[in-house]
Amino acid sequence: MAKIPVGVLGATGMVGQQYIALLADHPWFEVRYVAASSRSAGKTYREAVTGRWQHGERLQGDDVIAGCASGVGNLVVENANDISAALAAAKRGDCAFVFSALELGKDEIRTLEEAYGAAGIPVVSNNSAHRWTADVPMLIAEVNPHHTDIIPLQRKARGWNQGFIAVKPNCSIQSYMTPLFALIREGYDVRRIIVSTLQAVSGAGYPGVASLDMIDNVLPYIGGEEEKTEQEPLKILGDIRNGRIESRSLPRISAHCNRVPVTDGHTACVSLEFGEKKPSIEEVKRIWLSFSALPQELDLPMAPRRPIIIREEENRPQPRKDRDADKAMAVTIGRIRPCNVFDLRFTALSHNTVRGAAGGGILNAELLRAKGYIPEG
Amino acid sequence: MAKIPVGVLGATGMVGQQYIALLADHPWFEVRYVAASSRSAGKTYREAVTGRWQHGERLQGDDVIAGCASGVGNLVVENANDISAALAAAKRGDCAFVFSALELGKDEIRTLEEAYGAAGIPVVSNNSAHRWTADVPMLIAEVNPHHTDIIPLQRKARGWNQGFIAVKPNCSIQSYMTPLFALIREGYDVRRIIVSTLQAVSGAGYPGVASLDMIDNVLPYIGGEEEKTEQEPLKILGDIRNGRIESRSLPRISAHCNRVPVTDGHTACVSLEFGEKKPSIEEVKRIWLSFSALPQELDLPMAPRRPIIIREEENRPQPRKDRDADKAMAVTIGRIRPCNVFDLRFTALSHNTVRGAAGGGILNAELLRAKGYIPEG
Amino acid sequence: MAKIPVGVLGATGMVGQQYIALLADHPWFEVRYVAASSRSAGKTYREAVTGRWQHGERLQGDDVIAGCASGVGNLVVENANDISAALAAAKRGDCAFVFSALELGKDEIRTLEEAYGAAGIPVVSNNSAHRWTADVPMLIAEVNPHHTDIIPLQRKARGWNQGFIAVKPNCSIQSYMTPLFALIREGYDVRRIIVSTLQAVSGAGYPGVASLDMIDNVLPYIGGEEEKTEQEPLKILGDIRNGRIESRSLPRISAHCNRVPVTDGHTACVSLEFGEKKPSIEEVKRIWLSFSALPQELDLPMAPRRPIIIREEENRPQPRKDRDADKAMAVTIGRIRPCNVFDLRFTALSHNTVRGAAGGGILNAELLRAKGYIPEG
Amino acid sequence: MAKIPVGVLGATGMVGQQYIALLADHPWFEVRYVAASSRSAGKTYREAVTGRWQHGERLQGDDVIAGCASGVGNLVVENANDISAALAAAKRGDCAFVFSALELGKDEIRTLEEAYGAAGIPVVSNNSAHRWTADVPMLIAEVNPHHTDIIPLQRKARGWNQGFIAVKPNCSIQSYMTPLFALIREGYDVRRIIVSTLQAVSGAGYPGVASLDMIDNVLPYIGGEEEKTEQEPLKILGDIRNGRIESRSLPRISAHCNRVPVTDGHTACVSLEFGEKKPSIEEVKRIWLSFSALPQELDLPMAPRRPIIIREEENRPQPRKDRDADKAMAVTIGRIRPCNVFDLRFTALSHNTVRGAAGGGILNAELLRAKGYIPEG
Repeated sequence: MAKIPVGVLGATGMVGQQYIALLADHPWFEVRYVAASSRSAGKTYREAVTGRWQHGERLQGDDVIAGCASGVGNLVVENANDISAALAAAKRGDCAFVFSALELGKDEIRTLEEAYGAAGIPVVSNNSAHRWTADVPMLIAEVNPHHTDIIPLQRKARGWNQGFIAVKPNCSIQSYMTPLFALIREGYDVRRIIVSTLQAVSGAGYPGVASLDMIDNVLPYIGGEEEKTEQEPLKILGDIRNGRIESRSLPRISAHCNRVPVTDGHTACVSLEFGEKKPSIEEVKRIWLSFSALPQELDLPMAPRRPIIIREEENRPQPRKDRDADKAMAVTIGRIRPCNVFDLRFTALSHNTVRGAAGGGILNAELLRAKGYIPEG
Repeated sequence: MAKIPVGVLGATGMVGQQYIALLADHPWFEVRYVAASSRSAGKTYREAVTGRWQHGERLQGDDVIAGCASGVGNLVVENANDISAALAAAKRGDCAFVFSALELGKDEIRTLEEAYGAAGIPVVSNNSAHRWTADVPMLIAEVNPHHTDIIPLQRKARGWNQGFIAVKPNCSIQSYMTPLFALIREGYDVRRIIVSTLQAVSGAGYPGVASLDMIDNVLPYIGGEEEKTEQEPLKILGDIRNGRIESRSLPRISAHCNRVPVTDGHTACVSLEFGEKKPSIEEVKRIWLSFSALPQELDLPMAPRRPIIIREEENRPQPRKDRDADKAMAVTIGRIRPCNVFDLRFTALSHNTVRGAAGGGILNAELLRAKGYIPEG
Repeated sequence: MAKIPVGVLGATGMVGQQYIALLADHPWFEVRYVAASSRSAGKTYREAVTGRWQHGERLQGDDVIAGCASGVGNLVVENANDISAALAAAKRGDCAFVFSALELGKDEIRTLEEAYGAAGIPVVSNNSAHRWTADVPMLIAEVNPHHTDIIPLQRKARGWNQGFIAVKPNCSIQSYMTPLFALIREGYDVRRIIVSTLQAVSGAGYPGVASLDMIDNVLPYIGGEEEKTEQEPLKILGDIRNGRIESRSLPRISAHCNRVPVTDGHTACVSLEFGEKKPSIEEVKRIWLSFSALPQELDLPMAPRRPIIIREEENRPQPRKDRDADKAMAVTIGRIRPCNVFDLRFTALSHNTVRGAAGGGILNAELLRAKGYIPEG
Repeated sequence: MAKIPVGVLGATGMVGQQYIALLADHPWFEVRYVAASSRSAGKTYREAVTGRWQHGERLQGDDVIAGCASGVGNLVVENANDISAALAAAKRGDCAFVFSALELGKDEIRTLEEAYGAAGIPVVSNNSAHRWTADVPMLIAEVNPHHTDIIPLQRKARGWNQGFIAVKPNCSIQSYMTPLFALIREGYDVRRIIVSTLQAVSGAGYPGVASLDMIDNVLPYIGGEEEKTEQEPLKILGDIRNGRIESRSLPRISAHCNRVPVTDGHTACVSLEFGEKKPSIEEVKRIWLSFSALPQELDLPMAPRRPIIIREEENRPQPRKDRDADKAMAVTIGRIRPCNVFDLRFTALSHNTVRGAAGGGILNAELLRAKGYIPEG
């Protein structure tokens, strides 16, 4: 079967590179279009990322490929602001949809993603710009796959034919959102959550956090992160009504977001209060261990076989040891125990640039493809 | 005025070294007796710490002193198990009391500290062994200085004449215990606390935490730390009744204790629920900024001039920048804001081996001296 | 084809674990015997490494395998001092030869490895104990594969039938030994080398280096490392004469070995003086790029396709980005330029626990198998 | 005695902040003028550094001073490009000379420093811009204090009256330049040096090196650093002839400069070849231990009492433990031993932003003041 040609917007940045790396051997998708800022436009992708490539290298055929698979390395980077270039690529069969990993101001991104959508090119976005647009689904494939049902309404309301915009939530909530949902799905309402995150520096892009701030240090603040951590789960758990996704009002969440000297892998220390009905610790573990959802049923290529992994050792999860579990797409949970104030305490970890960014985006695209929203190209 | 001669038990360990370093120029106390395990006994202190000294060096007279002030460096280390050596030192005027920084099993420490106390040598301890002994005060000099009132009762009950045991609490609670008390003292009851700590590796002694566990990593567990964090504040806030210190039952505390790649300085992310009466954020800041207690009134040498420092920058406190504030004895607080679930959120930081260990012990000894419990030697 | 059953001595340590991890899917070898100290003996391998496993986990069948592939995880750990257990395993077809990653005193290891050899069990060792035994080859498969010719002589001299001992050199020389040899093989004598190494903490095992020594710090000394770095290359380049491997006298090497806060990957900064005949920088690059040796010709499973990778970016090689190149078995070289004092300068990097330890040992075993020294089991 | 009023150009940058911090209690100098880029101009110094201040805080009077001493904190930052502002300050007695820590392009700095000099304001610079200007002395106060003799010639040639420019060399050579000179002064010629440096991130300013490049990593390259390391010592050891400082041709130096995850403190691994006359290791130690020079004789406030400290422990010097020795102005040397290729090997360490930058600049100014080149203001 021919692969579906995809474009990556913002392909030279931290998350953009992660998309290129993860899609190198993807069974369904093939990167055939890359776009970035005007600074990179006109260079080959290989030139554009030389000295900035964050991943390992690959041997391909007889060549040592510096930075990336040779196919993508030879693509000429286009200007992401130039929709006509993407349209031309679409026309010649090189861009059935785009992953958006743009690094611009929010307003600019919002406008640009809408322009792609209006031009008939679906946008699967990693950005926060459209997360609160009422007719745009904010997807975690295991949690709210049914929110894709809003896409026909989005298209209709906007007069779009084939294009649409779907986004994913912030990386900081990925470690506990799926476990939270697993409990709710089993009928255990969650009323309140207090969470402290210990977040990796890759979340801030490159160059991102200064090394002087991270050697022998912790930063107790990440701009905008606590608001996202507290509010995005409410939309993800929300309901489609009148062409809009309406947020739930519970659980109330309070977040302390910290930056720690870790390259990849966000850790979350979660204390959680259930509603009337409270599961035992054993019941919680049983629910998490057996948790499976639509991506697993559809056997989507990027889906982890086990969305939630439980470690019984008292000193796990740890970023360096657990972030790569199951293609770096699983959430690893440990230290599951009663909370001295609420009902349940645990520590959860997920890979922020894979599960929390590019990998999550790819899984969303796979879901959208499986549901027929993405054309064959 | 002649200085009071003091001994340090466990003088070669992490906290023991910190005592030696901090007492180098102390106006009241002078280290004239050092004891450690049998492995070090018989060596000079300088020999015993060579290659293991964790602090900087000092120039003294014409000599570059490797490791420590020359006076202490030349002392011969005694065996801490040998009380008679300490008694001989006491007799010749070299040991009016001891700081205990022993690194032994809890039972062993408990027995040994009691033996010193019984022999008439007051013990100001850093260890957890006697923290839950009902007639032993667990002191933070700014919070419960009145708990020293139990010492006469302790002496009487045990038939001790001059000796006694006083301890200090765990380093993990030092960042938020004083701020908590400051609010309670002003009439604001605190009902519940959820706290996540990001603790420095020096808290585990030397060699302590393996570097393979701390490079690009976080450990989500520290043995025994959460229990101490949750229970010790209740005794510190307790009342003396019938010769015992009885713990309060509130606030209920739930702790997540993590180890992070930081040398010194424990960070705590605190969410806190008040009782009926709730102060405004401005009132909280006012209370903390103006907080002062007995050590400040008595102008004790180790007392910080400001027990609580507030930073208004959104990215503070940070371990590397704030741990040394005011002789490393102040607590630095930042990110003071309403909690989305409880009433108040903030991040607090204190130096774990100074305020949280040796410095806190010295301040306790100063308080005990000022109150007349420690003899002139 | 049935796999050859192998044993791992010291299987629970840092390098031992690396052997288990690397052999999980090996096409020729299958771990069917594990031995360690008496502390671990009697436990299953899974139990023995719980909480100490340094690698990621694997999904296997329907099970989340904590720590290791299920097959090995269920093996009962034997006492490595008990040769009879190994002999029994050999007899029942579970141990055709052993990898030795023992963590004992040198004398003890020497004696123990000889006992295995005498008992007819070939020993492919990672230890330094036998590196200077005259009839024991110290192998880098790409550099001195012909040194295996001493094995028949070793067997004869010792009256051994099937057993033998072969070792690999220290991890600190792996980054520059192959490049050095590549130049010598092309006829460029190397007279003098001054090298500074920046070595990873995994080289010291677990727990190994204290985190207090590695946060915001560098250690300028690693016990015994400089001597190994200076002398081992001379034996590797040596000649077999009269049943002994005689070291060469050149190049003279002077080493500064440092420990830096890196988990895996040793970096070496090399300045090198040629003899009369001096290659140009271009010639050096040509030699390295085209370098290939017996393991590549034999297409051994663990052999890197390119033993030497050259990076042209000025800021490479870097441990985190280059250590895993080509199964973590390639040496990556960058900053190739004239030396202001000698003739040539460059920076070289290799993975110390793979290329420099377990991976190098496995490659040696593959070579020995290909040459017929290891039986089919 | 009234203090001499000084200005700091580039006062808000990394080195500029270090000047402010170090001059806070200086007995001779008082900062009364601060200038920076147009971005900071017009703000108070306190405002300009808020959130970027790299040092601890100070208590002053009753105020907690965020970031800096209150006097400097209240100064209004001027635009460093505006010489007239500095002249006005000079006229009103607030700026007898300036420390230059500008962070601009080299040409711009060169022009700007000359403009200050021409305007009669002496410039004691930390920048590399004028290091190779033939009539500008590049001073290490202990090594070439006599190079100040060129100042009258500089003034005459340029038609300047009171102004002049004096610079200091690069931080990377500070760890071994004084030891090197000490040996040469005793009559031991040094012919060749091969040095590898492990440099701290503060050398790159703030934000400087990305944390993603420093967690679990080493960078093998620092732009321009090796050239400076190899060439600057030759001018420092040079002779004044015909109004120019002429470089020596020896020793030849070859440098490998690396960036490591350390905040402050550059480490250098040095191998060194003497000329005909070669000292014993004992003689080398004797020379270094007893080394003293003009700053020590003049008892300059910033001068270390011992310019060279020797550590006999095999695992020293270490950045975290030794960088602050003697006001962070001493060089600490350890691992003194014969070189296997040249004659002598050792590891040397100095604090790069104090001894290697602001502290060295202040010591130069003290020397220039003691010699009468700087007016009383």
